[in-house]
Amino acid sequence: MPRLVMKFGGTSVGTLDRIRRAAKRVGVEVAKGYEVIVIVSAMSGKTNELVGWVEETAPLFDAREYDAVVSSGENVTAGLMALTLQEMDVPARSWQGWQVPLRTTSAHSSARIVDIPTDNLDAKFAEGMKVAVVAGFQGISDEGRITTLGRGGSDTTAVAFAAAFNAERCDIYTDVDGVYTTDPRISSKARKLDRIAFEEMLELASLGAKVLQTRSVELAMRYNVKLRVLSSFGEQSDDAGTLVCDEEDIVESNVVSGVAYSRDEAKMTLISVADQPGIAAAIFGPLSEAGVNVDMIVQNISEEGRTDMTFSCPVSEVKRAEKAMMEAKEAGAIDFQELVADTDVCKISVVGIGMRSHAGVASKMFKALSSEGINIKVITTSEIKISVLIDRKYMELAVQALHDAFELEKAA
Amino acid sequence: MPRLVMKFGGTSVGTLDRIRRAAKRVGVEVAKGYEVIVIVSAMSGKTNELVGWVEETAPLFDAREYDAVVSSGENVTAGLMALTLQEMDVPARSWQGWQVPLRTTSAHSSARIVDIPTDNLDAKFAEGMKVAVVAGFQGISDEGRITTLGRGGSDTTAVAFAAAFNAERCDIYTDVDGVYTTDPRISSKARKLDRIAFEEMLELASLGAKVLQTRSVELAMRYNVKLRVLSSFGEQSDDAGTLVCDEEDIVESNVVSGVAYSRDEAKMTLISVADQPGIAAAIFGPLSEAGVNVDMIVQNISEEGRTDMTFSCPVSEVKRAEKAMMEAKEAGAIDFQELVADTDVCKISVVGIGMRSHAGVASKMFKALSSEGINIKVITTSEIKISVLIDRKYMELAVQALHDAFELEKAA
Repeated sequence: MPRLVMKFGGTSVGTLDRIRRAAKRVGVEVAKGYEVIVIVSAMSGKTNELVGWVEETAPLFDAREYDAVVSSGENVTAGLMALTLQEMDVPARSWQGWQVPLRTTSAHSSARIVDIPTDNLDAKFAEGMKVAVVAGFQGISDEGRITTLGRGGSDTTAVAFAAAFNAERCDIYTDVDGVYTTDPRISSKARKLDRIAFEEMLELASLGAKVLQTRSVELAMRYNVKLRVLSSFGEQSDDAGTLVCDEEDIVESNVVSGVAYSRDEAKMTLISVADQPGIAAAIFGPLSEAGVNVDMIVQNISEEGRTDMTFSCPVSEVKRAEKAMMEAKEAGAIDFQELVADTDVCKISVVGIGMRSHAGVASKMFKALSSEGINIKVITTSEIKISVLIDRKYMELAVQALHDAFELEKAA
Repeated sequence: MPRLVMKFGGTSVGTLDRIRRAAKRVGVEVAKGYEVIVIVSAMSGKTNELVGWVEETAPLFDAREYDAVVSSGENVTAGLMALTLQEMDVPARSWQGWQVPLRTTSAHSSARIVDIPTDNLDAKFAEGMKVAVVAGFQGISDEGRITTLGRGGSDTTAVAFAAAFNAERCDIYTDVDGVYTTDPRISSKARKLDRIAFEEMLELASLGAKVLQTRSVELAMRYNVKLRVLSSFGEQSDDAGTLVCDEEDIVESNVVSGVAYSRDEAKMTLISVADQPGIAAAIFGPLSEAGVNVDMIVQNISEEGRTDMTFSCPVSEVKRAEKAMMEAKEAGAIDFQELVADTDVCKISVVGIGMRSHAGVASKMFKALSSEGINIKVITTSEIKISVLIDRKYMELAVQALHDAFELEKAA
């Protein structure tokens, strides 16, 4: 029998009524002849409540106990979903991570999936179970303790089950109806994409689009799992939402698929750094140790043995970055004249697999920004992405200008 | 190292602050040199919330899913208690039922404990763990599914662990400071007992005293576990609360240890039943099938082949009892003239192992009631208990009169 994985996030199972609506969607797929694996998150708000209790109890908590407490939210939803399906005469049962078992590393609170043996679920499917409702986000370590995969880990659980059970598709039900060319709150012309390539989705996810967890997209790409993002509140149809798929499955596409933004960025410049071999390591080693997530890095041309080094990081990490740099200077590890922080910038990116075969995307982007009088402060590029730092006050304007310039409101 | 089991009920772990207070008590015992197994209930209110969701989702629920959902409350408390102990530098970890594993029958929602292998906990105690915090009320079936032991099952969990791990004592921390000669809300002269025999506690528990679950007392009696009931809000000392122990450990005791009552009883009489062999089975079989919990049974002397049969049951089950009797009459299984229900009665009992060696307890009881003008409607006796049904309006008066008559305010 063909198999399907359906994942419902916290808002999609936030009340008993919403669980019923989600169960009805599952029933529709079962009626079509699928055996379904449903992955559920905790009811919205529950995980935060549990995390709050743990943090209040022990600010420096034992991650093993954190996992034992926090994973309970998903167990509740799994049981309630199974009961709801049974009420609809759909043979269903709940599975907690350790019952599957979903084996993970012992890196508590951010464990990685090691293996999902299919024997237990297969045996129950063979006995007539139509739906396995699996508690997302959790697994079991070699030591027999409960682990969790980190925030958003239920997406990753879903994709991993789809890969392990050769599911025809992995449907991620959420509170938005798909992936858009840009944030509809910023541009009214934003258009829902019918399809998007894994690589594009990965870039968008790491650029701040909150639709899917980055790791779930990586996993889907590696095992070529057809991943669909769709709303649990809209119509149910086979072509709803956005299909995240292999590049080859996308027949036509625009050169640029989407415009992403990240609001709270900071640009830090070390002025007149003594330019010598190993200087990058001497700068970025301490930053990494201080927990600063450095994003873009630009080094100017060296003159007379000195250079300017610019990097970006989230605004919230500027203080830490400054402290790390000053300490490195005092310790004699690096030598620079001044550290200048610009905390009023944002990052705008255009993403598209079409860039691989089309020249001129960068120049089109720069022209569009320039014609709006927007100054570009830093540029970085990858094979399918161009990102720039600009003043934060131009953020909405830049997104709209780029959306227009690349005509994203039109399908290819 | 000597071992201790400490059980904390829902109100004793109802907030993070209360969990901290409970953890401090555990710390005191660890400092004395004990290895401690702590059994926790769900935070007060949590189990009711979960049960409510299950019942709203599926009125006729699958008990396996009920157990999976409802057991999650204890898991949360276990993790939080372990974290709290760690914050106090006490080496502790949480254990869910399946991790121990606490093996039970597959009778979901009312499973019985089959076995508690000690290997896993012993290994961790050997590695330096001082406190094992175990989620109460839950276990795992042979099929690998989560089971629960029924309401109050955490008491039973605690006693079973005390037996399995040869604990010196099993301390049940609750919101009352021990077992009283009667309900202090009814008699201001009620006195806390320092010791009470298992048999007495069993009778009191089944008569409606809500201090301990009946099954936990049975288990403690069978394995001779020293069981102590004490308040989690009072002073901590080795002789606080009430010790439930073997009869031989009680040096001196009053003839009667306590007066119990059960408010909402009903007395049902089948008038002029055709008296023939098998008539009792013909009456009480259908009642049992209808889920009526028959308590006292009295049969009058038979005259001319007919007799009156009286029994008592909870008021809430009267309708069901009437329906079952009428149906049995229509089906020709029994023949009676009339069914009379008196729903305004209550049951008063005096309990004491001293009755075994002292005559005259019954007559003293009847005299005390009679001198207050209270008419006795039904009497039943056991080796260590005498129960009577009387009009409900005399309940408080009867309890006080009996407490006075047997001088329960004085210790032996």
